[in-house]
Amino acid sequence: MSVSEFEIINRYFASRAVADEHIVLGIGDDAAVVSMPADQQLVVSIDTLISGVHFPVQTSAADIAWKALAVNLSDLAAMGAKPAWFTLALSLPEVKHNWLAAFSESLADISSIYQIPLVGGDTTRGPLSITIQVAGYVASGQALLRSGAKVGDQIFLSGSIGDAALGLHLLQQQSDSPAETDYLSRDLIRRLNRPQPRIELGQALSGIASACIDISDGLFADLSHILKASAVGARLQQAQIPLSEAAQQFLTDNPSLRSSIYNRGDDYELCFCVAAEKCGQLEAIAKEHYCSLSHIGEIISGDDLQLFDAQNNRLDYDHDSYDHFMVKHE
Amino acid sequence: MSVSEFEIINRYFASRAVADEHIVLGIGDDAAVVSMPADQQLVVSIDTLISGVHFPVQTSAADIAWKALAVNLSDLAAMGAKPAWFTLALSLPEVKHNWLAAFSESLADISSIYQIPLVGGDTTRGPLSITIQVAGYVASGQALLRSGAKVGDQIFLSGSIGDAALGLHLLQQQSDSPAETDYLSRDLIRRLNRPQPRIELGQALSGIASACIDISDGLFADLSHILKASAVGARLQQAQIPLSEAAQQFLTDNPSLRSSIYNRGDDYELCFCVAAEKCGQLEAIAKEHYCSLSHIGEIISGDDLQLFDAQNNRLDYDHDSYDHFMVKHE
Repeated sequence: MSVSEFEIINRYFASRAVADEHIVLGIGDDAAVVSMPADQQLVVSIDTLISGVHFPVQTSAADIAWKALAVNLSDLAAMGAKPAWFTLALSLPEVKHNWLAAFSESLADISSIYQIPLVGGDTTRGPLSITIQVAGYVASGQALLRSGAKVGDQIFLSGSIGDAALGLHLLQQQSDSPAETDYLSRDLIRRLNRPQPRIELGQALSGIASACIDISDGLFADLSHILKASAVGARLQQAQIPLSEAAQQFLTDNPSLRSSIYNRGDDYELCFCVAAEKCGQLEAIAKEHYCSLSHIGEIISGDDLQLFDAQNNRLDYDHDSYDHFMVKHE
Repeated sequence: MSVSEFEIINRYFASRAVADEHIVLGIGDDAAVVSMPADQQLVVSIDTLISGVHFPVQTSAADIAWKALAVNLSDLAAMGAKPAWFTLALSLPEVKHNWLAAFSESLADISSIYQIPLVGGDTTRGPLSITIQVAGYVASGQALLRSGAKVGDQIFLSGSIGDAALGLHLLQQQSDSPAETDYLSRDLIRRLNRPQPRIELGQALSGIASACIDISDGLFADLSHILKASAVGARLQQAQIPLSEAAQQFLTDNPSLRSSIYNRGDDYELCFCVAAEKCGQLEAIAKEHYCSLSHIGEIISGDDLQLFDAQNNRLDYDHDSYDHFMVKHE
């Protein structure tokens, strides 16, 4: 069958794009044209997912599409931005219509859920990789940054972390002989493949959080970015770090995996700091967005990240986040 | 040596970013924040270059960086947009500091020449590929589209085409044993590796051209996009299609390569249509921008692209543009 890049774009992507008042010209010209609401700034971020690096090679087309947009939306969430539009650069080793149909349908689903239209893209032949650049709006000067944490601020974490890391562990164990998975494993793997970016929470935290980041590389690594950008330290209570029931149950049987909870990412929860006098506003936000917000520690002076147990003993921990470029010293 | 993604970004990219009044927050947070000039629309385009597909594997890091931004700037040129900012997703098989230094220096050079700051990026481990998303400004409603060509409009082409296709031919011939190349070959290869996007010309054509496209896939293929989008046909005079002296000289010795001049892209010239009464304005534009503008044909009714020789005989031609997904019928 003969198929051109233009046919792929028209058949799978252009026809499924979400309509939006700000899109003056969408897919199909040399570039897209978008208008800007008044008094807003544009928040932009780009992220690539590569097969075998950012997702297991056996990941379904639908899960890949979901995750590729979700991880970019999560960056908008961490800035408190409202989704505006995105572009897609898709590199494919070959044209498989079933794959493209599942990928584009799932991409249209998540783009419709989060109301973010696809405005342009590029489809090339090459090893499977997906690059998405998202743009979002914030009121001028209102973006949530990493750099605003102050000594005395309290540190919070949305939802729960660790499921994605445990889900990946399960998939890696099963890779040779995919087993019938139980409901527990399915929950963990689903968190890995279908992250839910905290878009509404991020917008609600604008004007309340002093600093914010999304958990993509692991709690310790990502919180460390806030500490470095804000020139402060942090004191965390391990017992307060929220784990899902699935993760708690799994760790009971596999205690050696505990450090991966803190050092692996892909959870896409928000970690943020709030000045003491504003913490009272969080309860209403948690209720409105059906999202638990756990108080996990506080910002202190200095530059290190300290972890304590329930008896206030300081704990050693591995600080070993995932970095695909990091080569260990021998 | 141990090196993280964050060190790569800081060392090679963040420190070299061009300053710009619209960049509220550049590289280093979850996302960048940019402000918008009043009464402007944003033009956005994304393009990927993959090693071995979009450039020969032996291409230098400096040439790759230049071309990756240039081909995206060319899309802005085709829309008549002024460069605003860009994001970079760079996938690298391994960290080679010499390569990264040459790549980032060349990227900073072209970004400084065209005054377009890098605002954010993602660096991942994977097969070598470079995805850039550019954004530009146009006055509201003034973007040059493919869809405005009218019967009777005259068709123009900037500069000359074919050098890049011949340069690629030369490189492919030499790939096993790179020879000392003469000045002619060097000129052709340089056009392939260092395209000059027609940014100033594109902006000057706003309000004058009825339709515009950049030559990335070949003159016939790209002009056909205008014809399809505008629901018109075209009549071209082969003798008027501008070739460089280097290309003319090369074709004298290699006449069989003539069709590649029209069917291969990478020239990044602008092909555009102008209503008869506005053609008088082109001479001043050509002078101001030191850029020849050749009158190559006119828009006719119908939907086909017709090619004529100097004696007004209609010519057959291969319509065989490059498409990396196209699989030929047997």
